[in-house]
Parts: sequence; C-alpha cells; structure tokens
Amino acid sequence: MHFSIDRKYFYDKLSIVSRAISVFSPLPALSGICIDLKDDSMTLTGSDSNISIRTVIVPGELNNLDIEEEGSIIIDSKYLLEIVRKLDCKNIEIEVIDYSLVRISSDNGQFNLNGIRSNEYPDIDFTQPNHHFVLKATDLKSIVSQTAFACSDKDQRPVLMGVNFNSQGNMLYCSGTDSYRLARKTIELGSSQDFNITIPSKSLTEVVRSVSDDDTIDIFADSKKAQFVFDKTIIQTRLIDGTFPDVQRIIPTSCVSKMLVDSYEIAGTIDRTNFIRNDKVHLIKLECTPQETHVKTYSSEIGNSDEVLTKCEYEGEEISLTCNGTYMLDAIKALGCEKVLIEFSGFMKPIKVSNPEDASVLMILVPIRSYD
Amino acid sequence: MHFSIDRKYFYDKLSIVSRAISVFSPLPALSGICIDLKDDSMTLTGSDSNISIRTVIVPGELNNLDIEEEGSIIIDSKYLLEIVRKLDCKNIEIEVIDYSLVRISSDNGQFNLNGIRSNEYPDIDFTQPNHHFVLKATDLKSIVSQTAFACSDKDQRPVLMGVNFNSQGNMLYCSGTDSYRLARKTIELGSSQDFNITIPSKSLTEVVRSVSDDDTIDIFADSKKAQFVFDKTIIQTRLIDGTFPDVQRIIPTSCVSKMLVDSYEIAGTIDRTNFIRNDKVHLIKLECTPQETHVKTYSSEIGNSDEVLTKCEYEGEEISLTCNGTYMLDAIKALGCEKVLIEFSGFMKPIKVSNPEDASVLMILVPIRSYD
Repeated sequence: MHFSIDRKYFYDKLSIVSRAISVFSPLPALSGICIDLKDDSMTLTGSDSNISIRTVIVPGELNNLDIEEEGSIIIDSKYLLEIVRKLDCKNIEIEVIDYSLVRISSDNGQFNLNGIRSNEYPDIDFTQPNHHFVLKATDLKSIVSQTAFACSDKDQRPVLMGVNFNSQGNMLYCSGTDSYRLARKTIELGSSQDFNITIPSKSLTEVVRSVSDDDTIDIFADSKKAQFVFDKTIIQTRLIDGTFPDVQRIIPTSCVSKMLVDSYEIAGTIDRTNFIRNDKVHLIKLECTPQETHVKTYSSEIGNSDEVLTKCEYEGEEISLTCNGTYMLDAIKALGCEKVLIEFSGFMKPIKVSNPEDASVLMILVPIRSYD
Repeated sequence: MHFSIDRKYFYDKLSIVSRAISVFSPLPALSGICIDLKDDSMTLTGSDSNISIRTVIVPGELNNLDIEEEGSIIIDSKYLLEIVRKLDCKNIEIEVIDYSLVRISSDNGQFNLNGIRSNEYPDIDFTQPNHHFVLKATDLKSIVSQTAFACSDKDQRPVLMGVNFNSQGNMLYCSGTDSYRLARKTIELGSSQDFNITIPSKSLTEVVRSVSDDDTIDIFADSKKAQFVFDKTIIQTRLIDGTFPDVQRIIPTSCVSKMLVDSYEIAGTIDRTNFIRNDKVHLIKLECTPQETHVKTYSSEIGNSDEVLTKCEYEGEEISLTCNGTYMLDAIKALGCEKVLIEFSGFMKPIKVSNPEDASVLMILVPIRSYD
C-alpha cells in the first residue's frame, strides 16, 4: 500500500471515522482505522461494533490523493490522528514498508507506526436496510438538539437511552424521555413511511457532529440497524431493542392555567436558584397567581431564595408545584425561542413547555412531591 | 451589617479573595469569605491558612458602595460567588437580617444564605514583614511564567514545590527546579537586599492571576511569610521551610557544542514525537552533527520517528543524547523567543537552553540514560 494525500483533507476524514472508535476496545484491530486502497479509491473504516463509520475518498483536486500501490492496513487511530494533526506540511505520504510497518513521511522526517494486517479487521455488514427517508442536515440537527438531552443516561432501561423515531403516514415523531420528562419533535416527511425504531442518542450525536449544514442525509433503517448516508460517508448504528413507551398518553390535552414568559428572564431566574440542591437535585417551586409568579427554592442547610418574574403573563387557576429546575432549564434552552409557553394541567400533573410560535416541538415535565 | 454595592465590582473583589479559599477546608469558617464593615470601609478576607487574601473597598464612584450599618459576617464563598455572578442587576444590597442569616437583594428577588458569625473566623496575622522590595507586575509575571513550571509537584521534597527568591546585593535570582531541570530568571532590584526565601509556586500563581499589568507590587518578606501588596489588596503566603539546593553549581560554565535553532520548528518537531511515551515519559533523542541535527524517538511497541531540523545552525563536537521532550518543550515555550540557543556540555552532562538575546533567563535540563 502506498499513497500521498493532502494532510488537512486526510485529517478531517480520519477525524470523522475515528469518532466511532472506542479507546477501550477489547479487540486490538478495532482501536485502529482500517485503510483500504482499491479500484482507484480509498476507504476508511472505524468501528466500535455498535457504531461504524465508513467514508470513501476518490482522487480529486481538493484532496490531492495519489494512489501508487493498492493494499490495506489497520493503523492505531490515536497515534495516526496525532501525527497527521501535528505535521506541518501540505502533503503527506503513507506506505506499508515491511509486512505491517507503516511509514508516514513529511517534508523533514519519517514516522513509523506498527500497524495491524487488515485481515484481522472484523467483517462489518454495510448492506443497506429497506426503509428509506431523507432529512435535511438542519432538520436532523434540530431533532437531536431538541430531543436527545431528555434521554436517560442510565442503562437500567436501555430503550430510554435512545431517541424514538416513530413514523405514521408522512409524519415523523421523534421522542426522547428518561421517564421524568419528555422532549418531542415532529417533522413532516416527503414520503409516507411506517416504522418505529429507537436510535442510541450517542450515535445520533456522532452523526450530527459529522454532517455539514448543507448536507442532505439519506437514512436507511430496518429492525436491527440504521444508516445515515451523506457525502460519500456511511454512519451505521445498531438500534436499541425493546418497546419504547407510549409517550403520546402523557401529553396533556387540556390545561387549567398557562404562563407566557420571557425565556431569558425565566432561564436566568431558574439558573440563579441552582446554588441550592437537595440530595444533588435542583428543585424549584413555582407559585403562580394571575397577579404574581414566584420562583422559589429552599434548603434548611444553605438558605432560600424568592424571585418574581416580571415579563410574564399568567392566566387560569392559581397553582403551586415543585419541579426539577435543571429539567425545566434544559427544556427552555432546547426550545431556543424568545418567549416560552408553560401550561399546567393541575397539581402533580404533567407540565407542558412549548414554543408558542412553533407547534412542532414540545417538552413535558413531571412535577415532584416537595418538602412542604 | 447592611450595605449596597455595584454587583460587577463586588464580584471581581470576591473572586480575588476567594482564590485563597479551599473547598476542602476542615474549619467551616474558612470555607467562607469574611466581610467586615467598619470605619466607612469594607474589608474582605479569604484564607486556607497557608495563603490569605485581604482586600479593602472604600466607597467611590466605581463601586457605588453605600454602608448603612457596620458589622461583620462570614458567608460561604461558593454560594455567595454563584449568586452575585448570576444576578442580572446593577446594584445589590446585602444585610444580616437575623442573627446570622444574610439577605442578598436584587431588583426582583431575595436570596437568604445561612452565614457564620464573624467571631468564628480564625485570627490571621497581617502584620508587615521586614524585608521590602518592589517589582513591576509584568516582571513578577515573567518570573512566575518562566520559573514556576519547573517546580516539583510532588511533596516528597517540599522545598522544591516553591520558587526560590535569592537576593544578593541588588540582584534577585529566582529559581524553580524539580531536580531534573532548572529554570532561572534574574531581575535587577532598585535597592540592595539580602534574603533567601522559597515561595510556594501555587501562591505565586494566585498572585499573578490577581494583579493587573500596570500594577506595582510591594513585596514584604521575613523568614516565615511573604506579602504581596497592590491596589488595596494584600496576598499573604507562608514560606516553605528547608534549604533550597545550591542550583548555581549545576549551571554549566562551558560548552562543547551549541545549536541555534528556530523555536517554532524545534517546538513543533518535539511536539510531534509526543505520540511515543516510554513508561509515560516522553523521551527524545538528539543526534547532532555540524551537518545535520536529528530529533528521534523510539518504542518497540508503537513505532519510531526521525525528523531533521532545517532552520538550525550547529557548531562544535558531535553529540547524541536522550532527554525528556516535555521538559525541553516547557523550557522553549517559557523562553518565548524566536530563536533558542541550546548548549551541550558533554555526554550525560547538563544541557543549557536560553534566549540568545536575553541573558536574564536560562533553563537547564539533565539528560537521561537511554534505551540504546
């Protein structure tokens, strides 16, 4: 194997495939990037066996790729990335010089890395699943930023560690929940689909880190895996087994009172109550009347606080309830809008947080039984 | 106690005194900032009993300080700083409302923190030591940035955890060493002095973080403590006991060969060898002849590298030795000059690294017995 390539271009592509690689891989070959030169193109593959990324580079002006000899090798991704990142030259040359010893040459020097023969790389099945739909990168990014934060990070119920993509007709409902809160984004698809899959939130985060805003992403899925295809790159992830809870039934259909409030003000107010944590949980108490809405917090050890929201319109029943301030803040930030609509469906009943100008996204919070 | 003050100004002063406070203080009072209002001024004190910071605020236009009632209290620094930082108003009001309950009021709300009565604060002796000299803040900053990095971070030999300030006549020699390397900066003092003290490098770092570039710093010292006084602030630190090694004798007085090299090039080259670490130590091998200077590294497990320095003038004997690459890189970065002069005094003898245009600062490195 022997090729030369533009250093910066190569580094960017290595960075993408290396995102799939885990430093704690039990299989030595999987801590490496598999480089395969064949048929006048280069294929880079990285995998931790749950998520796999493959990208193809064909010679072109941008990348300056020049293939002198076909072949393949596995190179430890940590060392390869570090060397390619730090080199101070335009082009680099890489060749296998002796069985599995890889030489990386720059203008002033040489780096030799012990590689692994490519036949030790596990077979990864990149065949395309059946279901197919298309999303703009910006849509996928908003799905992930507005739902993935609400997923569970504990593996007690693995299915909650992913975002559920549920398509009925041409509507796609994307939901993240840790059973205490729910974040849901609805997207209209160009075609009618019928599937219900749960994609690990970790994998989705890697996908959105790798796409550019002007990409269009082809998504293929079956009951076992999903593929995100864009710009000669495939990101393939295993799906999470198990039945995702029916979240539709916890979305309140009516409300007893509602509050339209300046997002910046309420976010600042909740953030300021964060100095008090009860058993590491950030609790806030909302006391709302049509006259005044208070955000309070209390701890016998540390102290207490009481702030009034000034840019707030409230109508309906008086209500007083306690909820997780961090969750409320996450929801408000994920909505990313100027004013936020908070709807209460009663004491100890779910709270709905939404953007009054965009019905495609909503957040649900469950109140907490409080200290008083 | 009752006062109001400009929020931003107060926050900046709290930040300075809080630097002395350790979160792991065994004495509850020391996890707080002591606020003392008396004689128409406010004194803030923070301490971890090794380093103590005191600053005085007198009412003025900048700070808007308005003292309504004298008194004193200790407030937990973590909570106080967090609240004052996040508040979204120009002025804040602080008062003790009930025995030791402190109320912080902003435009829209109130925060009550459980304080501690100020009589529980330990007595800290801020009397001024005898020796006195003056340094510009910029000089103190270069002393610290060019010597403190070489201090030991292990407490096996506590005296090596500090920078030694040794004054003879009107010359001040500042040295940091961990016994494998030495960094020395020489400063000319305005007056003749005779002292030899070792200041914890941690304390020096706090001092330079607190001073502004246009400050002039009065330094007072005796055999037990040192005080840095500037802008109504005193930073006082305990000194390290013990005899600092006589570092003068390890500075080579002659050399067998020397190398004048572009700093950017050699720093980049050494940084690129960092992918190889032998037992977590970053070793580099310098192979120098008047024709070519090589920077090499080797590990049987990972691989090897070999780069030639192109912007390098070398004269004298051929030499080949191994040293700690991280230490060499630290030294080159601390010099911060365009070209760096590396002088060799022989095989396994100290290497001197210096700025050819500034004799006030020099670095010494001890070579390491290598693998081959």
